[in-house]
Amino acid sequence: MAKKNAFYAQSGGVTAVINASACGVIETARRHRSRIGKVFAGRNGIIGALTEDLIDTSKESAAAIAALRHTPAGAFGSCRFKLKGLEENRAQYQRLIDVFKAHEIGYFFYNGGGDSADTCLKVSQLSETLGYPIQAIHVPKTVDNDLPITDCCPGFGSVAKYVAVSVREASFDVASMAKTSTKVFVLEVMGRHAGWIAAAGALAADAKTDLPIVILFPEISFDKTKFLDRVDSMVKKYGYCSVVVSEGVKGGDGKFLSDQGLRDAFGHAQLGGVAPVVANMVREGLNLKFHWGVADYLQRAARHIASATDVAQAYAVGKAAVELALKGKNAVMPMVVRKSQKPYKWTIGVAELKNVANKEKFMPRDFITEDGFQITRKCRDYLVPLIRGEEFPPFKNGLPDYVILENVAVPKKLPAFVL
Amino acid sequence: MAKKNAFYAQSGGVTAVINASACGVIETARRHRSRIGKVFAGRNGIIGALTEDLIDTSKESAAAIAALRHTPAGAFGSCRFKLKGLEENRAQYQRLIDVFKAHEIGYFFYNGGGDSADTCLKVSQLSETLGYPIQAIHVPKTVDNDLPITDCCPGFGSVAKYVAVSVREASFDVASMAKTSTKVFVLEVMGRHAGWIAAAGALAADAKTDLPIVILFPEISFDKTKFLDRVDSMVKKYGYCSVVVSEGVKGGDGKFLSDQGLRDAFGHAQLGGVAPVVANMVREGLNLKFHWGVADYLQRAARHIASATDVAQAYAVGKAAVELALKGKNAVMPMVVRKSQKPYKWTIGVAELKNVANKEKFMPRDFITEDGFQITRKCRDYLVPLIRGEEFPPFKNGLPDYVILENVAVPKKLPAFVL
Repeated sequence: MAKKNAFYAQSGGVTAVINASACGVIETARRHRSRIGKVFAGRNGIIGALTEDLIDTSKESAAAIAALRHTPAGAFGSCRFKLKGLEENRAQYQRLIDVFKAHEIGYFFYNGGGDSADTCLKVSQLSETLGYPIQAIHVPKTVDNDLPITDCCPGFGSVAKYVAVSVREASFDVASMAKTSTKVFVLEVMGRHAGWIAAAGALAADAKTDLPIVILFPEISFDKTKFLDRVDSMVKKYGYCSVVVSEGVKGGDGKFLSDQGLRDAFGHAQLGGVAPVVANMVREGLNLKFHWGVADYLQRAARHIASATDVAQAYAVGKAAVELALKGKNAVMPMVVRKSQKPYKWTIGVAELKNVANKEKFMPRDFITEDGFQITRKCRDYLVPLIRGEEFPPFKNGLPDYVILENVAVPKKLPAFVL
Repeated sequence: MAKKNAFYAQSGGVTAVINASACGVIETARRHRSRIGKVFAGRNGIIGALTEDLIDTSKESAAAIAALRHTPAGAFGSCRFKLKGLEENRAQYQRLIDVFKAHEIGYFFYNGGGDSADTCLKVSQLSETLGYPIQAIHVPKTVDNDLPITDCCPGFGSVAKYVAVSVREASFDVASMAKTSTKVFVLEVMGRHAGWIAAAGALAADAKTDLPIVILFPEISFDKTKFLDRVDSMVKKYGYCSVVVSEGVKGGDGKFLSDQGLRDAFGHAQLGGVAPVVANMVREGLNLKFHWGVADYLQRAARHIASATDVAQAYAVGKAAVELALKGKNAVMPMVVRKSQKPYKWTIGVAELKNVANKEKFMPRDFITEDGFQITRKCRDYLVPLIRGEEFPPFKNGLPDYVILENVAVPKKLPAFVL
């Protein structure tokens, strides 16, 4: 087989460890220079491929690439852009082939979630449908942990650790103040459809550290009366309570709880979060003093408190993607396989992309307690290993020393293409 | 001098390192057992003294007390409760003396901010006015960094580090996504009157890490047009922008920007934060996609990312408080003195409480740039040493291993007292 170049792109919302996967891809490719030429990264994801805006990662030093392992977010830029079906948009796929041909690209590594798995699957079929030889390997990434088949998704362990640590710390704070001040703290976390991130908030408490925590999952229809009853009983027992609410929680009417039609004094619509909505319910229903927080990007970018397990798995799927390519595989995704629960052992397996694309994994009902406000033992056993271990980034002047790459552009060879 | 017991209490909003001060007080007192008997802590602050709800810290192991150094929030409980003047409320002061007498307390260590310094000063005058010999030493604590005289306040360095790290991480995230998605990220931080915490957001960027950051200080009257112009120019130059907004920012009318009279669909008043208000301005004024976060308690409880400098200073003021007491001092506060800027060197000095109580230290105008949206070199030189160094807590199962004390009650000797 002739030596081919590789294309790598980051897709969708970024994570604390997606760059660790990039690191795994690039370092592994560099160890196989006899078979893989250069790794070109798409600037801003797949858009970089379509617009022939490629980054030559060979211009980056070994130290800079190594530093990706401890740098959060997308070092080459990511994007929210979903390719349509081949029938609907043949021009885009033809363009991809033109760019791949022009730059002698034979490997396509796509680092993303469910939508990206679908795009990757379509690209993998290009050789059949448009006659261009390409091996497309999907590298799993999502904070939401909603990809099927893989035991967990790189990116999730770190956001889970961030949320668990934050809820533990905030709960200690509220416990201190509850006698005369705040009694309920509400933290809004990500998860529009699946409650994995909210579930991680429950890890803040354990056998040694007894903390009153109420979780609101998107999988459970919100019942205001039951919720206020639960908060009330927690506050009566502990003196305070922390609430972790998933951004995607819906009421019995199927509408997002955050969608309260807020208007300012001039009648302008205001986009609010779900945390203040829940906090206001606590105030109106129970007359308790509250505080609320919204973690937003802080949670998924928090490389400073990343899970060492997550970092290792993110690197491993990047490395495995290149190794699968070298074995001639196409339309596959390296995945995390849980070999043993206690002690926790994992390895990398291989999933067929057609089984991954466009499927969402929700919290199983037996991971949530009967009453809908907490996680079960089974869920805890699943989650705990994923947040274990610390791999702190290097610090300089009090701050994590994250790398910003040179991102040198590959000279263009083709005419411009309008997206 | 006869051997006396000591009273220690935590006051007001807690911090990531107030327990490190408690650790300094208790460990130092334990090293002087010949002169200081037991350290009794007030359960829930000064309320514990008034209600004779005392905690016997001598029941805690050396390991548990040592663990306070790495545990956030108030291990004995804090409170928001300000003693009135002696003339207005003689009964409360008389009660304090009764409790002190009953438990042979000769030292009063009060760990708090400006209001607490005032309370501490009043207690220090009890020996003169009510004839009871007590030495009152204030131990400085506040995330707001608004105490006068001391170079900085224990508690501030850690919240500053949290905010700087978070803004750096979130900015990396937004930078990745800006091409097709979020272009402006707004983070709300604490600081109702003083902008020190917001200022720390500017540290996210430095000579090596160029990030577009706009700061909104409570000291600078908010000008919507200028603000939107600044964000617009940042987004044009960098493709994105992060905004750090202090909760206390006020408009030209002197009203809090967060006070927008929000109503839900039923016309109920909603308590919102300032971050969504600012984010909505960006959307309406510039039509840019945004995200916003509210750090709330997460910022001040984040012991996992505490500044080593801050931890050391928090411990040092606790230790110094006991040493000052042993030297016979009264109505004083150990403070942080900056001996040298480069290299940063500090030592502990002594302030007279009458010069500290009820005074707030705002950001000097020359710490804020002319345009009002950034910090000056002078401010940066002041702030950087305060966030330097990491002193990570021990971790267990992926989470910081914080201590929850036994908090054994001292048997009561007096009749109940109604607050």
